[in-house]
Amino acid sequence: MPADNFGMLKVLEDFSQQCRTALDLANGIAVSGKVDKIVVAGMGGSAVGGDILKAYMHSSKIPVFVVKDYSIPNFVDENTLFFAVSYSGNTEETLSAYEQAVRKKAKIVAVTSGGQLAAKAKKAVKIPSGLQPRAALGYLFFPVLGVLANSGIVDAKESEIKEMLDILGKKDDFKTAGERLAKKAYQKTPVIYASSLFGPVAYRWKTQFNENSKSPAFHHVFPELNHNEIVGYQLMNKNDWIAVFIRDKLDNERVKLRMDITKEIISSRVEVEEIFTRGEGLLSRMFSGIYYGDFASYYLALANRVDPTPVTVIENLKKKLR
Amino acid sequence: MPADNFGMLKVLEDFSQQCRTALDLANGIAVSGKVDKIVVAGMGGSAVGGDILKAYMHSSKIPVFVVKDYSIPNFVDENTLFFAVSYSGNTEETLSAYEQAVRKKAKIVAVTSGGQLAAKAKKAVKIPSGLQPRAALGYLFFPVLGVLANSGIVDAKESEIKEMLDILGKKDDFKTAGERLAKKAYQKTPVIYASSLFGPVAYRWKTQFNENSKSPAFHHVFPELNHNEIVGYQLMNKNDWIAVFIRDKLDNERVKLRMDITKEIISSRVEVEEIFTRGEGLLSRMFSGIYYGDFASYYLALANRVDPTPVTVIENLKKKLR
Repeated sequence: MPADNFGMLKVLEDFSQQCRTALDLANGIAVSGKVDKIVVAGMGGSAVGGDILKAYMHSSKIPVFVVKDYSIPNFVDENTLFFAVSYSGNTEETLSAYEQAVRKKAKIVAVTSGGQLAAKAKKAVKIPSGLQPRAALGYLFFPVLGVLANSGIVDAKESEIKEMLDILGKKDDFKTAGERLAKKAYQKTPVIYASSLFGPVAYRWKTQFNENSKSPAFHHVFPELNHNEIVGYQLMNKNDWIAVFIRDKLDNERVKLRMDITKEIISSRVEVEEIFTRGEGLLSRMFSGIYYGDFASYYLALANRVDPTPVTVIENLKKKLR
Repeated sequence: MPADNFGMLKVLEDFSQQCRTALDLANGIAVSGKVDKIVVAGMGGSAVGGDILKAYMHSSKIPVFVVKDYSIPNFVDENTLFFAVSYSGNTEETLSAYEQAVRKKAKIVAVTSGGQLAAKAKKAVKIPSGLQPRAALGYLFFPVLGVLANSGIVDAKESEIKEMLDILGKKDDFKTAGERLAKKAYQKTPVIYASSLFGPVAYRWKTQFNENSKSPAFHHVFPELNHNEIVGYQLMNKNDWIAVFIRDKLDNERVKLRMDITKEIISSRVEVEEIFTRGEGLLSRMFSGIYYGDFASYYLALANRVDPTPVTVIENLKKKLR
């Protein structure tokens, strides 16, 4: 039985420490001048920080766009703050997006552990190497937040960050809940649901089940899924699926009611599990939601008898792409 | 065996005529003054037009946002052109978004067949009633395009529209291809893939499989899926899934290569079917991609012995929400 040969559990357990370290990495790095749009370009694990930033800034006057592709929107210009995020620094889509942003004269900050991106970028936050990108979420997100704070664009309060670090420090709670959920998800296909705001958290769960557990997994958001996906349960088989609802105490009241009713409706067709985010601040609530899923996917990997760390399929694909 | 008791086939067959009629519905309706952002608010079938508009305007300097929720972004202001799209006119999320847009003093145009939205909106495109929203895509999209053209914001060329109508008029080609695909998808879960640009087409397929065929179905886009979802095939069972690739001749060359390699990699785990869009203009290519899927979901409904038209689950949910 393949076990955790590359130490994924240790990396997960150290996540609050990673976030703490990551908070200082952007020290001294800022942009100046007008910023009326923010674009985060990245792929896979390196893009999750962008998704989270978009949610974190949902009430900002400055729109945030996450680009997971070779090309960037045509409206990127000199008033655009453009983050090129690639853990390895060699992600071809992100390098392509970076080159386009240079031509558009955007204000560019790279977040990377090295590679071509580190060599090219004039302004970069250098982050520690040696991890799987998806295991480096703290390093990939907090430098972006730091640059925005240093530039006077966001105001992440000390108390909000402290609360998050405290909550993530209680790792045993998350481990226990994650392991329990993994047992329920074993030999089923997980479908992860959240509010639109917590969509990035649901997507993170989905991708972690894919990459860590090597399992199919999907996600969708409320209220949109009530207009289509819910009908698909009519032909679903109870033994094949598990629906996980990620719930937040500040979910819109109508969305809360929709979640309750949806659970009632689909319970005859699938297992339904509910996960509740923790804390008061949005950072706590998002990262606690993510942290449960990281452990759930880790324990599902062990149950599936696969090592959570290597993603051989992606490595093979990259070789064929050369 | 439940058949097509409500005439979905007829509605699908008449789609090019619906688009033709829809093109004139916005005549005389325009907005004036500065527009630097476009927001389309809608849910489910009423939101698909927004997704398509976002793709259609992908090279515009004006960003397009699609809101599928109760609340709208904080950056909506008097320079925002805001489309409130609700086929029934009574979709609670869209009505809530509409009220917020009014408070933000956005330039609002409603697209609806009636209901509260028609009663409230000062500027509205009235569209024919009596269809399922998802079967009214022509009525829901072309009035939006028309208002944008009338306002000098987009320039949809006569020749591009004519090509699209000609291609959609060849309905037998799409019926045949859709029926063939439905046979392959029978008793499998479809997972639909496309480039990012054609993501709305893939999402439309997914939702049509949900609503018409009452089947689970999911979607994702290239290149992002190469960074996570592809790993999930490791534990997939050939008999349970079918992957459908929607391919476009103008897909980025690296994305084309990714699709070829991905097909090769996952073929041992799932059936893979490829669908090719038709035409030169982006409207033709998007709507031809959609039209295949509409017929595929129709024929899969018949195979599944369900009527494609009623979505009882959604109706029940709405009753419980009152």
